[in-house]
Amino acid sequence: MSAQRLRERASEILAANQLDLAAAPSFGLTGAAIDRLRLSTERIDDIAVGLEQVAALPDPIGEVMESSIRPNGLEVLKVRVPMGVIFFIYESRPNVTADAAALCVKSGNAVILRGGKEAAHSSRAIVDILSAVAAEVGLPADAVQLVETADRDAVGHFLSLSEYISLAIPRGGESLIRRVAAEARMPVIKHFSGNCHVYIDADADLGMAQRIVVNSKCQRLGVCNAAESLLIHADVASELLPKLGAELTRRGIEMRGDARTRELVEEAVEASDEDYRTEYLGPTISVKVVGSLDEAIEHIAAYSSQHTEAIVTKSIEAARQFAARVDSSAVMINASTRFNDGFEFGLGAEIGISTDKFHARGPCGLKELTSYKYVVYGSGQVRE
Amino acid sequence: MSAQRLRERASEILAANQLDLAAAPSFGLTGAAIDRLRLSTERIDDIAVGLEQVAALPDPIGEVMESSIRPNGLEVLKVRVPMGVIFFIYESRPNVTADAAALCVKSGNAVILRGGKEAAHSSRAIVDILSAVAAEVGLPADAVQLVETADRDAVGHFLSLSEYISLAIPRGGESLIRRVAAEARMPVIKHFSGNCHVYIDADADLGMAQRIVVNSKCQRLGVCNAAESLLIHADVASELLPKLGAELTRRGIEMRGDARTRELVEEAVEASDEDYRTEYLGPTISVKVVGSLDEAIEHIAAYSSQHTEAIVTKSIEAARQFAARVDSSAVMINASTRFNDGFEFGLGAEIGISTDKFHARGPCGLKELTSYKYVVYGSGQVRE
Repeated sequence: MSAQRLRERASEILAANQLDLAAAPSFGLTGAAIDRLRLSTERIDDIAVGLEQVAALPDPIGEVMESSIRPNGLEVLKVRVPMGVIFFIYESRPNVTADAAALCVKSGNAVILRGGKEAAHSSRAIVDILSAVAAEVGLPADAVQLVETADRDAVGHFLSLSEYISLAIPRGGESLIRRVAAEARMPVIKHFSGNCHVYIDADADLGMAQRIVVNSKCQRLGVCNAAESLLIHADVASELLPKLGAELTRRGIEMRGDARTRELVEEAVEASDEDYRTEYLGPTISVKVVGSLDEAIEHIAAYSSQHTEAIVTKSIEAARQFAARVDSSAVMINASTRFNDGFEFGLGAEIGISTDKFHARGPCGLKELTSYKYVVYGSGQVRE
Repeated sequence: MSAQRLRERASEILAANQLDLAAAPSFGLTGAAIDRLRLSTERIDDIAVGLEQVAALPDPIGEVMESSIRPNGLEVLKVRVPMGVIFFIYESRPNVTADAAALCVKSGNAVILRGGKEAAHSSRAIVDILSAVAAEVGLPADAVQLVETADRDAVGHFLSLSEYISLAIPRGGESLIRRVAAEARMPVIKHFSGNCHVYIDADADLGMAQRIVVNSKCQRLGVCNAAESLLIHADVASELLPKLGAELTRRGIEMRGDARTRELVEEAVEASDEDYRTEYLGPTISVKVVGSLDEAIEHIAAYSSQHTEAIVTKSIEAARQFAARVDSSAVMINASTRFNDGFEFGLGAEIGISTDKFHARGPCGLKELTSYKYVVYGSGQVRE
């Protein structure tokens, strides 16, 4: 019903969006940022389709996650319940307002949204529609709330309210996430950087290796699950690197490599230690030739941000070693790093990709926004 | 093997324990606290049995928690992995040293133990034995470490090391837990107070009600899952409360109640609002007569610490309402609150009972000390 109302009331949203667009230069927004802020009938329809997709997902609440009957006859059920109130802090795209609200409410939570000031009018219009629908269908109209003050201290205030807010989720640049993590007195789901590696093993299918590297790096540049670093076993470097270098160069990607890489790829420039630590989010990749699987795993342990790493290999032993020893939210065997994603993993939707290990790791869908309680059915049992 | 070595080297532990006992008066320890500190051959055997029980549990690491095969053929496995390094801060009982080490190492983690200074020598002797066993069986000897400085700032220092420590677990009084929660830069599993309620519904079996109240309150007084507050439906109060009052009085429990309770139980004294908020951990219970299930649920929402609540009823509707609407780590239907416990729930062991909703809620066994990663097997898939 939210999707339907959003389409019906598109003109209100577009009018509000015009106010945001008019104010955009005063916030110093440039071409691409203004484009991301701009809504159209088509973009509103995309938002509505997103709402319909979340609505169509199974309701996670009430699921019996585990159960057992104890020797004394107690029936112990572990039941999925909402987290409570989620504080969601994000940057300026208005579509995120609708997405976040849908995911939080579908998982049984209330949500307090704090969007970027650049999209304030558009977000207000969207939240007004969602609140009206909530009231129509018998949900509390306050299940979705928008923090409207421009006062930056408001975020700090909300982050101190651990008695009322169960969970904070920041979505945006690293400085926003670090600030929220430092100030929050409640748990935070963080998604820090993705310095993702692809390792080409001595036993790799080189055609597959090339396709996976190119897809991991080039399919979309500015995303956290794009590859930023390539490790190649010395045994296959001389055959693969010249071809791969040519294709990446043709696609506008700069290679920054060690000495062996630069011998094999004329266009490659020298990589610094800092390069191996960098999430470029752009048309650059660091490259290193390694002597063994162990060396690749050690390099990843030292430089990776534990987001996503891939191995290309035909060796079951190399695959098992890599999967067991690489401590990242997702380890891909013969697949692109780009698959570390809630939709691709079948979660149906996602609110981000967690780089934490506590509570939620990797793609966060509806279940990751829930908790559980134990419900125990007895027939008068007392403890001996 | 740890258990065996602990028994073999019991004399070393007992000698170290003598040093702790000799120093106990200088720490101001009194009779009961000194008794909890004291080890004997029997108590060392109990510790060894605890280690054997943990050792016998299934290894949680590597479990495939969920899996799916995606339409593009990717096989997505969600695999249980260790958290990393756990910092465990506890008060003085030496047996906790061995328990905590066993749970953390069995779940694949390394652990840094910070025990009370009162048990420093005993803990050192136990950790020396465990480290020696670790080396014998091929685990890193440093998998179990003990912080020995008496400097209280040491805890603050460790709590700042979020890059190296994955999780902090305080076990002890509320001030310790609050301090750790406030200072830690890494996630914390907290177990705050248990102001647990038993509600006797209008439809209760009154014999069962009496047994459950008595067991919930009296079976062990100083524990977090003991009942501290009793709610009784007005329809059954006049029949049940006099009998229950007599039995609780006979067992040395003081009742603090509202006007109706005091009419029905001569010995009952007046309850203040503060009484209804109090976790007595002792021979006192607050009592209130309520007019309806709704009133009971509302009282619990206002006063409970969301640890454990029980209902006694024959009505399936009352049971379902209570289970759905009471937001506590465990909701007991016709069973004692004392069953909210890792062993009773079949987790095999527990490191505490979490009052958080994030990551772990209720009893925390081995699984609650783990995280997961996604391992994805493909055959060259790239993202379209």
